[in-house]
Amino acid sequence: MKKSKEKTTHNINVKEVNQLREENKRLQVLLHLAENLQAHLELDKLLFYTMEEVARILQADRCTVFILDEDKNELWSIVAMGIEKGKEIRFPAEKGIAGYVATTGEILNISDAYKDHRFNPEIDKKTGYHTRNMLTMPLKNREGLIIGVFQVLNKKEGVFLKSDEELLGAISQITATTVENSLLYEEQVESLNSFVETLSATLDTRDYITAGHSRRVTLYTLAICHQLQMEENCCEELRFAGLLHDIGKLCIPESVLFKAGKLTDTEFIQIKRHPAVTREILSSIHFPRNLKNVPEIASTHHEKINGKGYPDGLKFQEIPLGGRILAIADVFDALTSRRQYRDREPVEKVWAVLEQEKGESFDPEIIAIFRKVPLNKIVEILEYDQRDRLDQQELSQLADVKFDKIIKMKNNKENILTKEEKKIEKIFDKYYQREY
Amino acid sequence: MKKSKEKTTHNINVKEVNQLREENKRLQVLLHLAENLQAHLELDKLLFYTMEEVARILQADRCTVFILDEDKNELWSIVAMGIEKGKEIRFPAEKGIAGYVATTGEILNISDAYKDHRFNPEIDKKTGYHTRNMLTMPLKNREGLIIGVFQVLNKKEGVFLKSDEELLGAISQITATTVENSLLYEEQVESLNSFVETLSATLDTRDYITAGHSRRVTLYTLAICHQLQMEENCCEELRFAGLLHDIGKLCIPESVLFKAGKLTDTEFIQIKRHPAVTREILSSIHFPRNLKNVPEIASTHHEKINGKGYPDGLKFQEIPLGGRILAIADVFDALTSRRQYRDREPVEKVWAVLEQEKGESFDPEIIAIFRKVPLNKIVEILEYDQRDRLDQQELSQLADVKFDKIIKMKNNKENILTKEEKKIEKIFDKYYQREY
Repeated sequence: MKKSKEKTTHNINVKEVNQLREENKRLQVLLHLAENLQAHLELDKLLFYTMEEVARILQADRCTVFILDEDKNELWSIVAMGIEKGKEIRFPAEKGIAGYVATTGEILNISDAYKDHRFNPEIDKKTGYHTRNMLTMPLKNREGLIIGVFQVLNKKEGVFLKSDEELLGAISQITATTVENSLLYEEQVESLNSFVETLSATLDTRDYITAGHSRRVTLYTLAICHQLQMEENCCEELRFAGLLHDIGKLCIPESVLFKAGKLTDTEFIQIKRHPAVTREILSSIHFPRNLKNVPEIASTHHEKINGKGYPDGLKFQEIPLGGRILAIADVFDALTSRRQYRDREPVEKVWAVLEQEKGESFDPEIIAIFRKVPLNKIVEILEYDQRDRLDQQELSQLADVKFDKIIKMKNNKENILTKEEKKIEKIFDKYYQREY
Repeated sequence: MKKSKEKTTHNINVKEVNQLREENKRLQVLLHLAENLQAHLELDKLLFYTMEEVARILQADRCTVFILDEDKNELWSIVAMGIEKGKEIRFPAEKGIAGYVATTGEILNISDAYKDHRFNPEIDKKTGYHTRNMLTMPLKNREGLIIGVFQVLNKKEGVFLKSDEELLGAISQITATTVENSLLYEEQVESLNSFVETLSATLDTRDYITAGHSRRVTLYTLAICHQLQMEENCCEELRFAGLLHDIGKLCIPESVLFKAGKLTDTEFIQIKRHPAVTREILSSIHFPRNLKNVPEIASTHHEKINGKGYPDGLKFQEIPLGGRILAIADVFDALTSRRQYRDREPVEKVWAVLEQEKGESFDPEIIAIFRKVPLNKIVEILEYDQRDRLDQQELSQLADVKFDKIIKMKNNKENILTKEEKKIEKIFDKYYQREY
């Protein structure tokens, strides 16, 4: 009797131990996932990570997270793998299997996709992928509202089991909150961004002369940043500084700011106050940590490396790199902007001014970098307010040509141009002189 | 032999099962915590929840999470319990036990606080609390940087054990990322907020006549909202709408906007464009979902309930409640603003205008609510640009008096005022007529 009883206990324990071990593994996986998901507050990074991890955990080939865009009633996701990585996919919120799940809230475990009438084989046709089986589940937030859909494709061995459904259910719960936080965060980021963009454009349009100025200065600045292979976050800081560099003009009376004739000394002093006012305004804004240097960069766009600029007469290295870049972009745009009474200055004259001020106003290294920006980018920025009318095929012919090239060609008229060079000049002139 | 072998297996299993069960419980607690922490993106809510939960999980009396403010080199937290709930505590980042842990990164498990020289008994003295033992641990982010400190006080039974340290370690890892996300989120919220506040104030200061106008309109609007017991989120939307209601004036030429003499018809049409421009500007901004109605509210502040307002000639219920409130706040501020050439209009005259327009321009119910705002609030807003000079003790005497009261007193001069009424009138007049 005793022996038999012990044997029973033993048997129960073996079974229990195995269950406990399974449960333990499951909890560890979920906890690990919960901890790691949180590390990605930016939505695209979060989605990439989630899709990779969930495919791995469920031993499946692929996983897609679709997010429900309630305003547009669409589901969207981003491509996580391959050459199209980062591309957005969008479709009506009721379309296909994902749409069915988003609409009904049902879980669909389909063991043979091609036998299910709701399956849309078009995507397989387009991508060359072959969907065998799929597990699709709504992504529900804590209030039980559907905020998206999880779709896992092609279980590596066999089909998706009940246990996969349960695991994905638990994962979905963790993911939903993380995704919601990320959406709230992105909303805030986008709202600051769109506020700055809108304000910048609005300030520029107060006067036809400056219309589009801040935008173009920002684009030239970013072109230089990319040429310098500056890291993403520094570019972002410079983008904000570019858009906001003239915000101080808000406090200069329009009668002075937009005066057509010659300025009096007093008026000139008033105008020259604007970068200091830019600093004053921007310093009262609590920028997020990644944009902390925006006030300093934006307010140094009239400093000169010889120390004769304003407001502080800073010298070379005392001026932040961003300020030195902005200074060049700002002057270049002023010189190449069209006025009602005149066309653009010829590009070689514009460059003569920049070269003359090299080492005095401007950092020679940045001037050299600016000369290396691809010519198609330059034309796109010059004609940004006409961008819908640009012929992209023509512009693509300027993609391998450096800005340098056209300046040298214009400066050296004695040289006989090759056929290729003539073509480049023709395209550039067409847009530069706006003969289109 | 066989029996003995089985018995051994059985024994191992019992031990293993217990360990597995323990581990299971631990994982469940952590997973549950991870899921729930994420539900609180706003920092104060996150901290309250964390402190309560961690005290419960560790079977301790209290838990405090201190956050390291690197800019100021301070630790700070908020009071989670009692009448001071929500109050901020701040101290130098190296002070006390928490400071020691934040600086060294060590874990301190102190079984008798009063025997440890690093313990500062001052706080106990102040609060009347008795600290017996404490477990203090750095809050480290994924990069291993200390971002704060966990402090758990008074284990319910006995002292904190090694197992408590381990559990708190795991909790700290989960919490750190959540706290960091929350800090990043709050940074974004604050940056949009400070941007709007700064811009609003800057726009107002372009002309001395409008200096402080948007701020005061916002404050009157919020006073009415509180009187209506409007929920927090709607108040926030109205705050933004108030700060931005005149942003459209940015596109009206200053020569028209600030013209001293009579406006021509054309000029008047130009001025009347400003709420439509406000809408146009604000509509290009992607406000976060809780501020979605800002453009509509801000751009309806010149609508009248009789349909004779602009830009759309909307009638009563077609005008959002927020727009109807703003309309009253806007006119009230215009009528009570001081001009260089004149003092404020007498308050009874101002109210005569509001009452006359009641049912024509203004929603009668909101006018009625406005009359119920406490008089001290009204004075604080009227004299907002002089707020440092206001005598708070005097103002507190107006706290139980409704705005109503002073209007009735002024309108009914035949009545003999009581001593108390005379006192109220004297304080109000002193500030209203700025005789101080």
